[in-house]
Amino acid sequence: MGGCSSQSCHRCFFEYETERMIVVKSKVVGSVFRLIQFLILFYVIGYVCVVQKSYQETDSVISSVTTKVKGTGFTNTSDLGARVWDVADYNIPPQGESSFFVLTNMIVTPNQTQSTCPELPNQSTICMSDSDCLEGSNDVRGNGIQTGLCMNYSETVKTCQVLSWCPLEIDINLPEHALLVAAEDFTVLIKNSVTYPKFNFHKRNILPDVNSSYLKQCEFNRKTDPDCPIFRLKDMVSEAEEDFQTMAIRGGVLGIMIDWNCDLDWPEHYCGPKYSFRRLDNKIPENNVAPGYNFRFAKYYKTTDGRETRTLIKAYGIRFDVIVFGTVNAVCSWFLLTCTKRRDYYSKHKFTYLDNTDDNAGEPVSY
Amino acid sequence: MGGCSSQSCHRCFFEYETERMIVVKSKVVGSVFRLIQFLILFYVIGYVCVVQKSYQETDSVISSVTTKVKGTGFTNTSDLGARVWDVADYNIPPQGESSFFVLTNMIVTPNQTQSTCPELPNQSTICMSDSDCLEGSNDVRGNGIQTGLCMNYSETVKTCQVLSWCPLEIDINLPEHALLVAAEDFTVLIKNSVTYPKFNFHKRNILPDVNSSYLKQCEFNRKTDPDCPIFRLKDMVSEAEEDFQTMAIRGGVLGIMIDWNCDLDWPEHYCGPKYSFRRLDNKIPENNVAPGYNFRFAKYYKTTDGRETRTLIKAYGIRFDVIVFGTVNAVCSWFLLTCTKRRDYYSKHKFTYLDNTDDNAGEPVSY
Amino acid sequence: MGGCSSQSCHRCFFEYETERMIVVKSKVVGSVFRLIQFLILFYVIGYVCVVQKSYQETDSVISSVTTKVKGTGFTNTSDLGARVWDVADYNIPPQGESSFFVLTNMIVTPNQTQSTCPELPNQSTICMSDSDCLEGSNDVRGNGIQTGLCMNYSETVKTCQVLSWCPLEIDINLPEHALLVAAEDFTVLIKNSVTYPKFNFHKRNILPDVNSSYLKQCEFNRKTDPDCPIFRLKDMVSEAEEDFQTMAIRGGVLGIMIDWNCDLDWPEHYCGPKYSFRRLDNKIPENNVAPGYNFRFAKYYKTTDGRETRTLIKAYGIRFDVIVFGTVNAVCSWFLLTCTKRRDYYSKHKFTYLDNTDDNAGEPVSY
Repeated sequence: MGGCSSQSCHRCFFEYETERMIVVKSKVVGSVFRLIQFLILFYVIGYVCVVQKSYQETDSVISSVTTKVKGTGFTNTSDLGARVWDVADYNIPPQGESSFFVLTNMIVTPNQTQSTCPELPNQSTICMSDSDCLEGSNDVRGNGIQTGLCMNYSETVKTCQVLSWCPLEIDINLPEHALLVAAEDFTVLIKNSVTYPKFNFHKRNILPDVNSSYLKQCEFNRKTDPDCPIFRLKDMVSEAEEDFQTMAIRGGVLGIMIDWNCDLDWPEHYCGPKYSFRRLDNKIPENNVAPGYNFRFAKYYKTTDGRETRTLIKAYGIRFDVIVFGTVNAVCSWFLLTCTKRRDYYSKHKFTYLDNTDDNAGEPVSY
Repeated sequence: MGGCSSQSCHRCFFEYETERMIVVKSKVVGSVFRLIQFLILFYVIGYVCVVQKSYQETDSVISSVTTKVKGTGFTNTSDLGARVWDVADYNIPPQGESSFFVLTNMIVTPNQTQSTCPELPNQSTICMSDSDCLEGSNDVRGNGIQTGLCMNYSETVKTCQVLSWCPLEIDINLPEHALLVAAEDFTVLIKNSVTYPKFNFHKRNILPDVNSSYLKQCEFNRKTDPDCPIFRLKDMVSEAEEDFQTMAIRGGVLGIMIDWNCDLDWPEHYCGPKYSFRRLDNKIPENNVAPGYNFRFAKYYKTTDGRETRTLIKAYGIRFDVIVFGTVNAVCSWFLLTCTKRRDYYSKHKFTYLDNTDDNAGEPVSY
Repeated sequence: MGGCSSQSCHRCFFEYETERMIVVKSKVVGSVFRLIQFLILFYVIGYVCVVQKSYQETDSVISSVTTKVKGTGFTNTSDLGARVWDVADYNIPPQGESSFFVLTNMIVTPNQTQSTCPELPNQSTICMSDSDCLEGSNDVRGNGIQTGLCMNYSETVKTCQVLSWCPLEIDINLPEHALLVAAEDFTVLIKNSVTYPKFNFHKRNILPDVNSSYLKQCEFNRKTDPDCPIFRLKDMVSEAEEDFQTMAIRGGVLGIMIDWNCDLDWPEHYCGPKYSFRRLDNKIPENNVAPGYNFRFAKYYKTTDGRETRTLIKAYGIRFDVIVFGTVNAVCSWFLLTCTKRRDYYSKHKFTYLDNTDDNAGEPVSY
C-alpha cells in the first residue's frame, strides 16, 4: 500500500492508489475480453450458485417413524392344524417402530423341554460307542452339552447324546411354499415426521392437503396415489424388483427409503417425501452366509407340575427397514429466521398446521 | 507473465513484474478507499470466520443411549381386578434402548382361542342368511377367515362367522381416563455417550463434575437441576406443551432431543447436552389416520389339555424417542490432534476421565 | 471499467483495458516473486485439493444391519437346576437387529403372583406398627401399593405390607461370577450393507472376493482374517481393552463401529469396512448411576385355576450396538454419473455384483 514512512503515516492514510491503465481499442481484443468476463460470470452464477448452491445453509434431517400393519392370514399344517394369524401373531416386534418384521414362513418345534436327546448327525457328532463322546463338551455349532453317551439317532445312525431343549429342531425341511401366503396383501401404514432443527422446519409424510376420508381407503400407487401413506406389502416388494412369494420362503430385508431432500427457498409444498424401495440383503449364494432373513424365538409355558416347556419357532420373513434421509438447503428461510425480529411470529406462521390443538374438530380415522 | 522467448527463459525467470501505480492525494477519495478496505476486512473476519466458521473442521455425532424407567402403578378394573403394574409389565420393549414405551391405557381381551365366532358388525359383514357369506373370504380389514355361515352377533344383528382368535376384541370402548394414571410420576434415567470420531472426542451426558450422591436423588429441572439425567415423565410432556393425562388416553410419541452441538475450540466444559422435548406424532384429526399411538401384543398360554390360549392387549401409551444430534466444529483441537507429535498423549490427557479403570474406588449407585 | 458515457457505450464495449507493467530485472526480487508464486500454488494444490479435497462432492452413509448369534451355554444353580441356554433363551430381542443383547448373568424370581407381602426393608419402609404405614401410598422407589399394615419381614425387622408381584425380587445377591461363562465363545455374524444415494453406490461388508466355503468356518482376526464378518464375543471385548468375565458380571454396552469412509476416486476395492470396538457405557463408579447394563423382563404363565404367575428376570449382559458411519468423497464418480449420457450403463457396470439374480448357482451357506 505504497511506501509510507512512519512520520508521514497520517497523510499516507488518506492516499488512494490505483493502477495506470492502457485502453486498447480493437474489436477482436475487446470481444475476447468480454467473452472471458462472461464466462467467469456464468461460472459464478451457473455453477457455484445454481448447481452447487454454495451460498445456502444446509441441515440434516431428524426423523420419527411409527408403523402399523393390518391383515389376517390362514395356515393349515399337520403341526398346527387350521390356524388364523393376526397382527399380534406375525408382527415381531409389535411396537410399530421404524423396523418391523412380517412372518411369512416358519419351522415350529413344539413341546421342547430341558432333557437329553441324541445330537443331529454330522461329521463331529456321529459316534460308534460312548468313548467317541466327551462329557461336558460344548461345540459352538452344536445344540447342547454332551453327556458322554452314544445313542441311536435313527435305526442306522448313532450320535452323541446332549443335554438340551429336546426334541431338537430339524431345520432342513423348510416349506417350499411360504406358509403365510396371504401376507402379500397385508398393508402397512407408515407415519413419518421430520424436523430440520436449524431452520425450525417440521413436516409429516401425511401432507396437509390430504383429508381423513381419503386416508381411510387409499393405497399407495406411484402414479395414482403418490401421497397415500398406506402400502401393500406386495407392491413394495415389486417396486424393489423382487417377487414376494420367492422372497417369502427364505425371508429378506427390504428398505423403504423416504427421501426428504428439500430446497426451502421454494414454496413449502414442493418439499415432500419421495418413496423408493430396495432389497437390502444379499441374495447371491456364491459369497453368502445365512441367505435370507430368519431368527429363532420361543414361547414359554409351564406344565401343571411346574416344568417349563417351550415352542421354538424359527421365523422366516421380511424385515422392513424404514430409512429416512435428506438434507435441506435454504438461504431465504434461514435469512428470515435469523435476521428478522419477528422470528417467532414467522416460525409459527409458516408452520401453523402443527400448532392446531383443537382436538375435537372432526372425527379421527381409526386404523 | 511477460513475453519471454524460449531462449531468454532463464533470464525471464528472475524478472519481476508489477503495475505502475498512481497515488491520488485526496482526503475524500482516501477515506472512501479505506472504508471499502475496512468493509472487506470486516466481512472476512466477521462473517466468514465468526459467523460461518469456514476455517473450522466439522464432524457429526455418533451416539449410544440406554434408558431405565422406574415406578409402580395400580389399576382396578372389572376385567383384571386390583392389580399392580411394575416396569416388567408396562415397559415394552424392556431392553432400555433409545426408544421406549410406557403403557398408560389398554383394552384387554382375555382367553382368546382359535375358534369360530360372528364378525364385528359393519357394512360388509352384516348378513341375512348364509348366502351372504363367502367361505374362505379374507378381508384385509376383517378379523379372520369366513366360514360361510351367518350367525347371531346380538339379538338384532346377524354377521358372517369367522375362524379367528375368539372372542374378538371390541376396541370401541377405550377407557376415557387413562388406566395407569400413576405413570406421570414414573421417572426415567437416560444415559447417553457421544463420540466425534474425527476429533477422538468422547463425552457422556452425566458430566464429570456430578457426583453419585447427587445422582441418587436428583430430578431434571431446567432451572434448578439442568444436569440431572433423571426425568419425570410428566415434566417431559409438560415441556412439550402437552397435558399428560390427555395424551395418556390415546397415546402418542414424544421426542427427547439431546443437542450436542459444540465448538471444541472453547474449553471442554462448554460442550454439554442441551435437552428439549417435542411431541412428534400428529394430533390434528382432520388429516390423520390412527391418531395417538397404540399396538397390539399377546401373551400366550397353554391349557392343561395342550390348547393354546392368549390374552390380547391393545396397548395405548407414550413412546419416548431419544434423538441425539449435533455437529462439532473445531480448528484448534483438530490442529493439535493432527499436527503435534504427542498426539496420543494429548488425546488421553484431554479425556482422562474415560480411562480411569479403578472399579473399586467408591460405591456405585444402584438405580 | 473505464469511464464511458452512454453515447459511446457501444464503442466502449469493445475496448480492452490492461495495466501498464514495470519489469524489474533483479535476481533477488525475481527469486522472492517466484517463491511467493510457488507458495500460493502449493497451498492451492496441497492443502485445498489434497488435504481438504474441497473440489469433491461428499455424501453420508445409509446402512442396514442384521446380526445372528450362535452358541450354547450351561448353568447349574439351586434355583433353576442344570439348564442349557440356547439363542432363543439368551438373545433379547431375537430379531437380529443392529443392537442385540447377550445375557450373561441374572437374578431370577420365580412364581410371582399378584398378592401382598412385606416391603424390602429400608429407611422409609421399616415400621413399628400399622400407624407407620399409609394405605394407598405408592413410592416411586418402592415395589407396590401399601396396604396400611405392618408385617414381619424377618424375625427382627418389620416393614409395611404392599400389594405387588410377590415374593419381591431381592437383587442384592448378584452372582459374583457370571452365570453364563460360555458366552465368551459365542460368535455373531454381522451382515451390513451400505448405500451412498448421491453416487448410487452400494456395498456390503461381505466383500465380493470372499467365497462361501471361507465364510463357513472363518472368524474375524485383525491380522489373519480382517474380512471375515463372524466375530467371537470375547475377541470384540478384548479389542475394546476390557475383560469379558469382569464385564459379564454387571453387564455393559459395547460399540461395534464400522467405518465406511471412502474416496470413490480410488478403485472400488479400496472402499471396505474398518471395524473397531469401544466400550460405550461408563464404568467409573464416582459419578455413575446404575453401573453396567441390566433390565427386567418377565415370562407370564397361567395356573390351572386361571391365575396369572410370572417369572421375573433381572437380566445382566452385554448389549452390542453396531454403529455404522462414514462419508464418501468423490469427484470422478460423481462427474461420470452426472455428466455422461451412459449413466445407467455406468452405474450398473460398476456394481454388477449386486445385480446377479441367479439364485441357483452354488450352494448357500447355512449359519
